[in-house]
Amino acid sequence: MARVGVVGATGAVGRVLLDVLETRKFPVSELVPFASGRSVGKEVRFAGKAWKCRPLEAGCFDGLDWVFFDASDAVSRDWVPQAARAGAWVVDNSAAFRMDTDVPLLVPELNGHLIDRAWKQVKEGSAEAAAHARILTGPNCSTVQLVMALAPLHREFGLKRVIVSTYQSVSGAGAAAVEELRSQTTQALQGNFTAPQVLSHRIALNCIPQIGGFQADGFTSEEKKIREESRKILDLPSLRVSATAVRVPTEQCHGESVSVEFERPVSVQRAREVLASQPGVQVLDSPADLVYPLGVVGPGDAVSPGAGSDPVWVGRIRLDPAWDSGLAFWIISDNLRKGAALNAVQIAEAVLERKPR
Amino acid sequence: MARVGVVGATGAVGRVLLDVLETRKFPVSELVPFASGRSVGKEVRFAGKAWKCRPLEAGCFDGLDWVFFDASDAVSRDWVPQAARAGAWVVDNSAAFRMDTDVPLLVPELNGHLIDRAWKQVKEGSAEAAAHARILTGPNCSTVQLVMALAPLHREFGLKRVIVSTYQSVSGAGAAAVEELRSQTTQALQGNFTAPQVLSHRIALNCIPQIGGFQADGFTSEEKKIREESRKILDLPSLRVSATAVRVPTEQCHGESVSVEFERPVSVQRAREVLASQPGVQVLDSPADLVYPLGVVGPGDAVSPGAGSDPVWVGRIRLDPAWDSGLAFWIISDNLRKGAALNAVQIAEAVLERKPR
Repeated sequence: MARVGVVGATGAVGRVLLDVLETRKFPVSELVPFASGRSVGKEVRFAGKAWKCRPLEAGCFDGLDWVFFDASDAVSRDWVPQAARAGAWVVDNSAAFRMDTDVPLLVPELNGHLIDRAWKQVKEGSAEAAAHARILTGPNCSTVQLVMALAPLHREFGLKRVIVSTYQSVSGAGAAAVEELRSQTTQALQGNFTAPQVLSHRIALNCIPQIGGFQADGFTSEEKKIREESRKILDLPSLRVSATAVRVPTEQCHGESVSVEFERPVSVQRAREVLASQPGVQVLDSPADLVYPLGVVGPGDAVSPGAGSDPVWVGRIRLDPAWDSGLAFWIISDNLRKGAALNAVQIAEAVLERKPR
Repeated sequence: MARVGVVGATGAVGRVLLDVLETRKFPVSELVPFASGRSVGKEVRFAGKAWKCRPLEAGCFDGLDWVFFDASDAVSRDWVPQAARAGAWVVDNSAAFRMDTDVPLLVPELNGHLIDRAWKQVKEGSAEAAAHARILTGPNCSTVQLVMALAPLHREFGLKRVIVSTYQSVSGAGAAAVEELRSQTTQALQGNFTAPQVLSHRIALNCIPQIGGFQADGFTSEEKKIREESRKILDLPSLRVSATAVRVPTEQCHGESVSVEFERPVSVQRAREVLASQPGVQVLDSPADLVYPLGVVGPGDAVSPGAGSDPVWVGRIRLDPAWDSGLAFWIISDNLRKGAALNAVQIAEAVLERKPR
């Protein structure tokens, strides 16, 4: 049993993380939730009990076995190294350390083997090396679902070029953005307007083609993450990836429209097979029955909704006429679960499973 | 002055068409609105007067100079030839005749010269040939805004490959779909659900990766239209085009995320110049100021909204790393205006302008 810290426990991802830890029976003996300024002292529910949020302060990680970080890049930059030095395994969902060459960026179904190296450092390295090795990171939400679909296709057909346009829900911008969508939409439907506080423009009944800040090359930080993190996870450092990240007025689940060129000949049938055989991926692709991945559905709908589910759902799989050998397809995944909280817990589970005997 | 019929006058596009005819001072002496079953007898407002909707019936087009069709493919298939035989110029916004090889598919800024051939047939052909020549068509809404951006880029750099993912508003599915989005979203925000009547799945706070019916190749009819119509308008019959059409929970304006490979070297600066010099296109591309095309904005927002405006707005223009020479960009246009009603009136204006002397 383990003492588990959660930084950002009251946030959109943090809340789901507590739920995932509980439902997957992660061996938690004590929960230590951390929160920022105004949420310190708030209680979160876990395993039938209330746990009070503590502030981040010197020594706050002492005695913890695990610390999950679901907060800002700045918070992770400041506090992740302290948690690792205090002896905890850290699973960081921020972008702070993801691209550091000696920090693993993990989607356990795809590259969980990298944890063996971390264990070796933890067992055999200096105190400093061991602390560094205990820092594990999970990718950006829009990256996770993309690479989950790309990896099996790459093994079978060889990736050459990836073009992706995203349809990202506001929960990717945090709980306050969800509230902004809800209140602003309620107002908009009545002909009123409340100015945006969280997102850069009105999101009610609108799409915003910007997620993150702009880089000099005209891409946003989100689009850069999709490219750079996919390359790192797939171990294809020069893979050609072009991403356009768009915020859409949905609450939960990200959609992705993907076009891929392959090195070798592809068939839809074989693509469905290799996707279906990838643990964590579910193929939902019966267009004649209007069945394809959706974020949410109504009662009685024949489609399983992505929201609240674990898999990365893939459908609309078809030969892409832009290429001699290529596919177009559509991906839906719950950005708070496989895109963040679930993937983080899976990383921790993989560390436990891979512990050297 | 002309007697002008409008088929589908009470529909989403029809209402905007009446507004565009009036504001652009199209020379209308008499308006004859047509409607389907339950809307017959309803009045529409035009030029300060009320005009009663008539049914489609034998002889209903007699004496009309123009008939605009903004109804279903089936209605156009049945009634467009009758309007043309009755002596009217027809501007058909349905898909019924668009891909007929001898019917012009028009975006006047791009291929208005095709109208000269129609005039020649009207003046010199047999009665039957003249009637056929008076049938003019406008493209699908998602095609119009795409080709408006592609055409100037093609002239400068040479199109090789186009990959587009759309973010299409529900007004493209008609006024009833707008009502469904509004009522279903109102319910959803209160935790309730009303089953879809118009769209194939829940649209409230959701994206549906299907517009139109499915073809055998896995593409939808909407995606096929984008490919086939773009090829016809650009006169590039074998252009490689891959489209994914997605319905998003917005009311008005379609967004498009586009990735293009070119034959010749491209630069962002030159791309901005050629796009800005294309009549009907506006470049809105100042990422540092968070300025890029949006469908709707709130009061005080620095961005001009697409909804209710005439231009095709292009922004987020950047070199696309998927290609040796390519661009990625984002397009917004009002699907009811340039995507349908405005384009139709521009076609009629071009016919008047190009009348042989």
